Amino acid sequence: LDTRIVLVRPRNPLNIAAAARAMRNFGFEDLVLVSAYEPVWQDARAAPGAKDLLRSARVVPRLLDALDDRTLVFGTSSLTRRRPAQPVFPLPQIGELLEAREEQVKRLAILFGSEKTGLSNQDLVQCHAVLRIPTEKSTPSMNLGQAVAVCCYELARHGRNISGESRAEVNESLSAVATAGELDRLSEVIDRLAGQGAESAQSSARRRSAQVRQILLRGRLSSKDVTLLLGVLRDLDWKINHGGEKRSKVPPFRF
Amino acid sequence: LDTRIVLVRPRNPLNIAAAARAMRNFGFEDLVLVSAYEPVWQDARAAPGAKDLLRSARVVPRLLDALDDRTLVFGTSSLTRRRPAQPVFPLPQIGELLEAREEQVKRLAILFGSEKTGLSNQDLVQCHAVLRIPTEKSTPSMNLGQAVAVCCYELARHGRNISGESRAEVNESLSAVATAGELDRLSEVIDRLAGQGAESAQSSARRRSAQVRQILLRGRLSSKDVTLLLGVLRDLDWKINHGGEKRSKVPPFRF
Repeated sequence: LDTRIVLVRPRNPLNIAAAARAMRNFGFEDLVLVSAYEPVWQDARAAPGAKDLLRSARVVPRLLDALDDRTLVFGTSSLTRRRPAQPVFPLPQIGELLEAREEQVKRLAILFGSEKTGLSNQDLVQCHAVLRIPTEKSTPSMNLGQAVAVCCYELARHGRNISGESRAEVNESLSAVATAGELDRLSEVIDRLAGQGAESAQSSARRRSAQVRQILLRGRLSSKDVTLLLGVLRDLDWKINHGGEKRSKVPPFRF
Repeated sequence: LDTRIVLVRPRNPLNIAAAARAMRNFGFEDLVLVSAYEPVWQDARAAPGAKDLLRSARVVPRLLDALDDRTLVFGTSSLTRRRPAQPVFPLPQIGELLEAREEQVKRLAILFGSEKTGLSNQDLVQCHAVLRIPTEKSTPSMNLGQAVAVCCYELARHGRNISGESRAEVNESLSAVATAGELDRLSEVIDRLAGQGAESAQSSARRRSAQVRQILLRGRLSSKDVTLLLGVLRDLDWKINHGGEKRSKVPPFRF
């Protein structure tokens, strides 16, 4: 049972240490921090919490580095101002959600945004679904360490921690589910072909790119599906660049 | 729906503020602190959190002052070293627990011990039951603010917060349940008559006193039951002090 907690741009060392402690309390071991400021990270390691877990935590520059091998990615949000394109589930329903996606659950990641702004729309684009912690409208925003504690408690309640029942065998028998990294590569190729990369300045292009990603995430693709689709796209690219010419052995660029 | 959060001897101002914030997040308003050091309390009010809730919180000298009007009292513990006399329930089962005690739920209190030592045995004596937050054996002790967050989340999940469905009407129709204050008074009279007050130096006497309290808490007494039992004890006391004499109008001491 492989559940990763990902803190995106955390700012407060005490919160990072508190998150690590809650993970230890409820039996989680895999912590990744995305673009944490070095001084913040240094202070977190010195703060009271779960020092061994903080020592083994990874710090990566980009969100995708934290998600590359994941087969299911959930963002967390109080969703006060936003209405994301992703399906939204109240945290207490996570049990049903995990059951419905049994084949993807094996390598799960739960993302938490920064204390000030939460997850950005760009972060949420990488998520299969958004977990809404059911807080009051008058005070929706939770402390980061407490949000991690509540989510870890709920995940442990459904056996998603190290002492939970192993569902790995069930998953092994299923065909390999596409990882976040594979789906990201596929999205990028589509964006490039359609001329609507995430780098594009136009918000309409960015929105369409995000929508395509959501379709891919919803599609529950296997690794094989991704390979097949990349082949189709390679053929399309060839045709775009060479008109009706017969295809050469070497494609114009490597996907 | 009247649920009170009680922090017993909290030491860290940041934890008090974090507890208040979690209460606000999940729709709880009634916070009482028992024998909090004045400087700690001052700092807590200045810390980021739910300032309005901290302003309206009460600080009381003794645990009973926080419980006086409560009809159901739960302590929280990771129970690593202790085996309390009280029934123990894992926190995720609180829904069933509340349903089974529907008539007592109306004025609920949840107690949290100090960061260092948790609730003492003397604190647990006041509790109808103990909620065990199901943490890992290797790292059982939770941060206070996070423990409050997890419990408030779980209580809100079962509609025990301000936005929960009102069960007050159901409760109104039931006969008035004895409060913690009434039961404490009854226990004290029994202790006094039996010469085994909580102040007694003998641990065997203290243990018996605690056992009597547990029996009373288990008994689901109404306020009327308490009045009746106090009457019986008053008669007993008279007989002890006056042998077979006819009872006078004035009892020897006021219960």
